[in-house]
Amino acid sequence: MSTLDYGILAPAWAATGAADLVDDNALMTAMLATEVALAEAQAELGVIPATAAVAISAAAVPAHIDLAVVAAGVRETANPVVAFVEQLTAAVRSIDPSAAEYVHRGSTSQDILDTALTLLCAATLDHIEGDLLACADSLAENAERHRDTPMAGRTLTQHAVPVTFGLKAATWLHLVLDAVERVRRTRAALPVSLGGAAGTLAAYHQYALDTVDPVGATMRLPALVADRLGLAEPAIPWHGVRTPMADVAASLMVTTGALGKLAADILVLTRTEIGEVTEEQAPGRGASSAMPQKHNPVFSTLVATASRQLPPIALVLFGSMAVEDERSSGGWHAEWQPLRECLRIAAGAAANAARLAASLRVSPEAMAANLRLTRGAIVSERVNVVLAPLLGKANAKHLLAEVTSAAERDGTDVADLLAAALEEVGVAGSIVDGLFDPAGYTGMSGPLVDRSLERFEKVRRGESA
Amino acid sequence: MSTLDYGILAPAWAATGAADLVDDNALMTAMLATEVALAEAQAELGVIPATAAVAISAAAVPAHIDLAVVAAGVRETANPVVAFVEQLTAAVRSIDPSAAEYVHRGSTSQDILDTALTLLCAATLDHIEGDLLACADSLAENAERHRDTPMAGRTLTQHAVPVTFGLKAATWLHLVLDAVERVRRTRAALPVSLGGAAGTLAAYHQYALDTVDPVGATMRLPALVADRLGLAEPAIPWHGVRTPMADVAASLMVTTGALGKLAADILVLTRTEIGEVTEEQAPGRGASSAMPQKHNPVFSTLVATASRQLPPIALVLFGSMAVEDERSSGGWHAEWQPLRECLRIAAGAAANAARLAASLRVSPEAMAANLRLTRGAIVSERVNVVLAPLLGKANAKHLLAEVTSAAERDGTDVADLLAAALEEVGVAGSIVDGLFDPAGYTGMSGPLVDRSLERFEKVRRGESA
Amino acid sequence: MSTLDYGILAPAWAATGAADLVDDNALMTAMLATEVALAEAQAELGVIPATAAVAISAAAVPAHIDLAVVAAGVRETANPVVAFVEQLTAAVRSIDPSAAEYVHRGSTSQDILDTALTLLCAATLDHIEGDLLACADSLAENAERHRDTPMAGRTLTQHAVPVTFGLKAATWLHLVLDAVERVRRTRAALPVSLGGAAGTLAAYHQYALDTVDPVGATMRLPALVADRLGLAEPAIPWHGVRTPMADVAASLMVTTGALGKLAADILVLTRTEIGEVTEEQAPGRGASSAMPQKHNPVFSTLVATASRQLPPIALVLFGSMAVEDERSSGGWHAEWQPLRECLRIAAGAAANAARLAASLRVSPEAMAANLRLTRGAIVSERVNVVLAPLLGKANAKHLLAEVTSAAERDGTDVADLLAAALEEVGVAGSIVDGLFDPAGYTGMSGPLVDRSLERFEKVRRGESA
Amino acid sequence: MSTLDYGILAPAWAATGAADLVDDNALMTAMLATEVALAEAQAELGVIPATAAVAISAAAVPAHIDLAVVAAGVRETANPVVAFVEQLTAAVRSIDPSAAEYVHRGSTSQDILDTALTLLCAATLDHIEGDLLACADSLAENAERHRDTPMAGRTLTQHAVPVTFGLKAATWLHLVLDAVERVRRTRAALPVSLGGAAGTLAAYHQYALDTVDPVGATMRLPALVADRLGLAEPAIPWHGVRTPMADVAASLMVTTGALGKLAADILVLTRTEIGEVTEEQAPGRGASSAMPQKHNPVFSTLVATASRQLPPIALVLFGSMAVEDERSSGGWHAEWQPLRECLRIAAGAAANAARLAASLRVSPEAMAANLRLTRGAIVSERVNVVLAPLLGKANAKHLLAEVTSAAERDGTDVADLLAAALEEVGVAGSIVDGLFDPAGYTGMSGPLVDRSLERFEKVRRGESA
Repeated sequence: MSTLDYGILAPAWAATGAADLVDDNALMTAMLATEVALAEAQAELGVIPATAAVAISAAAVPAHIDLAVVAAGVRETANPVVAFVEQLTAAVRSIDPSAAEYVHRGSTSQDILDTALTLLCAATLDHIEGDLLACADSLAENAERHRDTPMAGRTLTQHAVPVTFGLKAATWLHLVLDAVERVRRTRAALPVSLGGAAGTLAAYHQYALDTVDPVGATMRLPALVADRLGLAEPAIPWHGVRTPMADVAASLMVTTGALGKLAADILVLTRTEIGEVTEEQAPGRGASSAMPQKHNPVFSTLVATASRQLPPIALVLFGSMAVEDERSSGGWHAEWQPLRECLRIAAGAAANAARLAASLRVSPEAMAANLRLTRGAIVSERVNVVLAPLLGKANAKHLLAEVTSAAERDGTDVADLLAAALEEVGVAGSIVDGLFDPAGYTGMSGPLVDRSLERFEKVRRGESA
Repeated sequence: MSTLDYGILAPAWAATGAADLVDDNALMTAMLATEVALAEAQAELGVIPATAAVAISAAAVPAHIDLAVVAAGVRETANPVVAFVEQLTAAVRSIDPSAAEYVHRGSTSQDILDTALTLLCAATLDHIEGDLLACADSLAENAERHRDTPMAGRTLTQHAVPVTFGLKAATWLHLVLDAVERVRRTRAALPVSLGGAAGTLAAYHQYALDTVDPVGATMRLPALVADRLGLAEPAIPWHGVRTPMADVAASLMVTTGALGKLAADILVLTRTEIGEVTEEQAPGRGASSAMPQKHNPVFSTLVATASRQLPPIALVLFGSMAVEDERSSGGWHAEWQPLRECLRIAAGAAANAARLAASLRVSPEAMAANLRLTRGAIVSERVNVVLAPLLGKANAKHLLAEVTSAAERDGTDVADLLAAALEEVGVAGSIVDGLFDPAGYTGMSGPLVDRSLERFEKVRRGESA
Repeated sequence: MSTLDYGILAPAWAATGAADLVDDNALMTAMLATEVALAEAQAELGVIPATAAVAISAAAVPAHIDLAVVAAGVRETANPVVAFVEQLTAAVRSIDPSAAEYVHRGSTSQDILDTALTLLCAATLDHIEGDLLACADSLAENAERHRDTPMAGRTLTQHAVPVTFGLKAATWLHLVLDAVERVRRTRAALPVSLGGAAGTLAAYHQYALDTVDPVGATMRLPALVADRLGLAEPAIPWHGVRTPMADVAASLMVTTGALGKLAADILVLTRTEIGEVTEEQAPGRGASSAMPQKHNPVFSTLVATASRQLPPIALVLFGSMAVEDERSSGGWHAEWQPLRECLRIAAGAAANAARLAASLRVSPEAMAANLRLTRGAIVSERVNVVLAPLLGKANAKHLLAEVTSAAERDGTDVADLLAAALEEVGVAGSIVDGLFDPAGYTGMSGPLVDRSLERFEKVRRGESA
Repeated sequence: MSTLDYGILAPAWAATGAADLVDDNALMTAMLATEVALAEAQAELGVIPATAAVAISAAAVPAHIDLAVVAAGVRETANPVVAFVEQLTAAVRSIDPSAAEYVHRGSTSQDILDTALTLLCAATLDHIEGDLLACADSLAENAERHRDTPMAGRTLTQHAVPVTFGLKAATWLHLVLDAVERVRRTRAALPVSLGGAAGTLAAYHQYALDTVDPVGATMRLPALVADRLGLAEPAIPWHGVRTPMADVAASLMVTTGALGKLAADILVLTRTEIGEVTEEQAPGRGASSAMPQKHNPVFSTLVATASRQLPPIALVLFGSMAVEDERSSGGWHAEWQPLRECLRIAAGAAANAARLAASLRVSPEAMAANLRLTRGAIVSERVNVVLAPLLGKANAKHLLAEVTSAAERDGTDVADLLAAALEEVGVAGSIVDGLFDPAGYTGMSGPLVDRSLERFEKVRRGESA
């Protein structure tokens, strides 16, 4: 019996469609596709009759597989393939009795399950790439539009110096593009798994002995299966070489890490006291039943959830690299469910991040108001640079600290106090004119935005950047 | 739409029943029970009419809640409670319109969801305790039966000195009892969650203003709800105090850690070359489709899988302790699905470990044969102790190393070579008589077994030990 | 040669003294103490001559051990004890040649190293308990002083309903007391490690054969050693039973989790825009070289660092529960350095948290100002409760949402708009009088503070609470 | 005062030299190099006088920096750079007072520390690459020599079908090459960090205002500094874009994962009962004080230790991707010490793995003996393939299972029983001749070895493969 999981406890991916990409149905479909591709490749190589491949292909429909029986088999054989192959074989037999013996020929459980999981990875990584690019699109738009919109740069929670919202968006964009590139690279390298019982392809070879070139036929088999499934040919059977799964894990960790940065920033900027950015509200979204005034930041919360969950779960996949024997007892098995969970968390995060980025409402007014909060101190770095040659470095710093502190205490402007103080030491107070405009001290924000947008164009065109 | 999860990718818990304990149905039932308990407690305190509590109780059946709608709400409000309460309220209204307004009175999403999750924890921990005790039972039986059965003790993969299989089983037993104690302690302390919007119980209090003692009624509310649900009263609202969840995580980590040790040992002892312990085979269990000779260790693999998966996933719960504000954005949300996954992995592991322990077949013959593999060197520690006073410590060690090495090289017995060598230096070779019997050098194995069995009796009686 | 580690990369513990508790000197001292306690206990049991114990005690000084040689031995033997015992034996020999053979008698590397590590755990947990209680003291003071100081309660980054700063401090206090209790419980249970080569105590027994009661002497040995070292007697040798280390890990995870919550909250409250709490500034503390206005929250950053680092590192200790054989290849070894790192991170965090709590400056003025930010909407939950019986639940909610939204848009007070709107529907506007005072809607904040303070008193007296 | 860490608790890297690559001395040297490169680049751009760069370069020697003072500063300012710059400035002043003000010009703590850490990463990754290639060399030699040496392939701890030791070594080689490629890619992309206070390079720009092209000079600055330090130019300041650190983490996780697989396999093959591979023994290596017969597998234990420790610690670096603001409070700080620990663990693992691979002694005799253990059943997959067309698939499987089981029970050969059984059903028993030779059923082991060796050649030449 299926465990009911509507995603009620899964804010990271509930209602995003991510779960469907990797659920038991999707897995079963991928396992069927793997058996079909294997049979067709073997038929092409003359290892099995073409008619058998046709029958296997015809029988390989989800309706022929009872998932509950497969799951029960997991507890008897520690993997789902044994029970699956029995059912598939029965289905083939009912279509063409002579074809039954060609099902799963020369194969082993891990070949089928690893390939099927790789297919789920491929489909989900493609999906994630799409949502990341959609997210990037919205971020790029924000970067461009707010290229020169000044806001407070914050370090260790305190106002530091001004930045622009465009640079902030460009930084998020940059991270998202980092994720796109890793996702693409990993996806392109995803290999089919074909090794036979202990990675020697011995049974595949044994069955090919009647062909003209048994070794050639066996060594070509993985590539033929890979072609059919849109996967890469492995250099070596990877039952015990788990780099492909580690690469998936690393790509997904970078994905939710990148999106998690976006969410973390927005959760700060959307605070009641800050209010520089909000998620556009749809009716009911972010609602609180008892507090009608509340509009919770929903998408950023969902993405933040994903970024907290994924890395520890992904750790299981790295832990499974160091396993014993041709096939391990527990190491391999430990990969499956965490891999699925990581895929759906990352896919959910990408979907929610795309929505988040599209729904950002930016308030340049709030940014401007916050920039005034320190009464000018936010540009003290700049003022320091200007005053140092006039007063000496130490004196400048001392004076600036003094007036900044006085301004905070008295609620006055640093600029005014400083001008007065400068006059006292014989420097024209007018030197401060314009110096305290935050918009005048955003450094390379603009050019850096331009550079990020250029990178985005390249990535969008599929170039490495 | 529900994501299909039969457990096909979940060897840690597939077909164990563990999933049902924590699936969306179970959660919904627990959420309903929480709302009912809250209403009944408020009725008892005179905060809401008794008839309202009756109506709420009547309406609180799973059939009234559409889980798909609840899941969709997760993406709109970042929690499942808002949509759930809407549906529950509608159901109450259809039974007794005047009762509708008393649903979820004064409450907040986190109160309901935390309490419901705690109920799932309680039920699952109870279940785990039962399976751990069953496992302990089988282990105790093995410890007793094989109290004095000698076998090779192995350290860093090499034969070290003899132990008894009884001691090995007693060690596993000890670990399982450690887990039982932690599971019990955690379960007993599981608190109900009741804090209201920001942990002040303000709305509960506001609604109680018409009662005789509003403060008293409010402060007593958590205990009354807790009583109804079989949970503990919290000392303080714990929306942001996540120790209860951390304790659950720690208990489960100890559980799969303890069982993982059992599985790791059995996976060694069951190796083709060692063969001292096997899992009893049922037809089809551990089968390999292509290799009829194979009998894979299935339950130990399933348990090993669980022990690899759980700790990283449980880490999410510790990470969620350090969260900001009265209720956090993402930290709390990140707990839910990993908590569920940890519960079902641990419950699956306990169920599989109980089966594993019950199905162990022990081969004292194989143990005896392996003890002979080093031709006596396995008791060289003892021989060393005996010879040192006769030859001097350094000489004794040197001589022993020499004959051990020669025995390994030539395939002869250490005892014979040693006797001859001793005669050469004027020591009666008869001194080695009996010295090389592994059964004579098992140290305190027996008394330590007895001690573990005594502890088991205490734990079985519910005493702390 | 020692690797230089001043803590320059270790903000979690730099300059707190935590490192000294667990550095190689401390370890060596603990290893020496273990060998001495073993010898003295064996002398008491008549297994070795009393004079030998005296000589071993005299020789057991750090000056006799060359740490570099010990470290080199780690790479040759995979543990530091072999090289250590050689040096200790040489030192004993130079004092009393006849005593040399009694060094480390019957023992094994893991007995010595595990016991020494346990001694470091004991000392560090004691230290942590002290700092946690100091931290609790400051928090209790804040809880008491600000029992009724209203401030905004924040959920999902948004103002929700009022709380008091006293309740906030009481919540932190509660978490710190949770940590104290777990630290105490774990420390009290820390066992000595004594099992001999494979956990049977066989060599200890072999050497005791000349005593009156060899079995009794051997079974009593662990307790005698434990007494001398202030540790507990183990129920069973725990070379492969890693619950004690898992308990240390869990206690430390709860410790940094609890303190991490404190830090996370302060990092929010200290933001430039919020400014409700600041760390008291000493000259130079929190300084930025280029931005004289900045006063970074230093102690909360240091504590936040610790809470991010510790749980993943502690995970290694849980992973090492599931290891094979009487002593494992790598599982045990993997515990050592992460255990040390966790101990010093947690000790550093406790020290920094004590300083943090002591240095908190609270601004009731800023709290009051922030409470006004939403122009009254922060008590909309309460107003809702009051209006519902007058207008009907749905009408009340709708009206409130409308005026809240209008107030936000126009910068006016919710109270005024609401009063006017009520008059329009025939309700006396005066009903809102007093309703919008945040200090009047802090619920059970006060009584909950009182309860936390009571718990603190109990914990301070050493009672379980 | 420095904490003493000789590596006594660090089997993963003790005595390998790995610690020196990343200790406080190495860090300080890298920080000095960073300040010098910055000054020289600014001099080249005309932002500071050439003489100032000369003075800074002259002053930038470790002797001028008191590490204890720097560490104390970490607790006051939450980073080591403030105290470091003060000391460097004083040193410059003593050489050329006029140059003092040009130290650290326009820079911020994170620029210096991130760049210095990146330099440590670069040096360590280079070192790791060298040791991985050395390891690969030994593995390739084994793969070639034992291309056709049959041994038991093991899956789920049981003998499955034969493999060759060459294929096993080729699989390890493949994993090591995977690590080399990831290490190289990550190292090549390591960027300099230059962003100024909040990532806008504003102060760098402010100081460049007197140059001809201030924007150009500022935008070119990172590349100039990068060139001097052998690092890459960053596309954007990465204070809050932690992909470079995540890539380092992922590369190191793959490194210890790959080496951990090697260690896990050797720890199995070196078991007393298996004995197919041993680590060559040097005097004292793997010694046990009390058990002279023991030769523990030391290097594989050390490598296994590393593979258990690194991934959880590396997790901290992924967790630090999702941090708030232009520079975070705790997220960034949490990276430093775990990064160092990961670098030295991975470097230690690579060094130990190189020694391990070089010291492997292979016993084809033991492999042959173990292949006989199942009395022929290890090739039952092959026999099955041969018999199926003769007897029908089901009959063949049934017959084979029967004789395999009988052979195990009676200690006879499967071949003999099968021949007899076949004769009974009218099949010539001679069909089994040669069928049971394990060397005849190693499948594609040979060609797969050849392919791995080709890949190794490519990687050795620096090509991507």
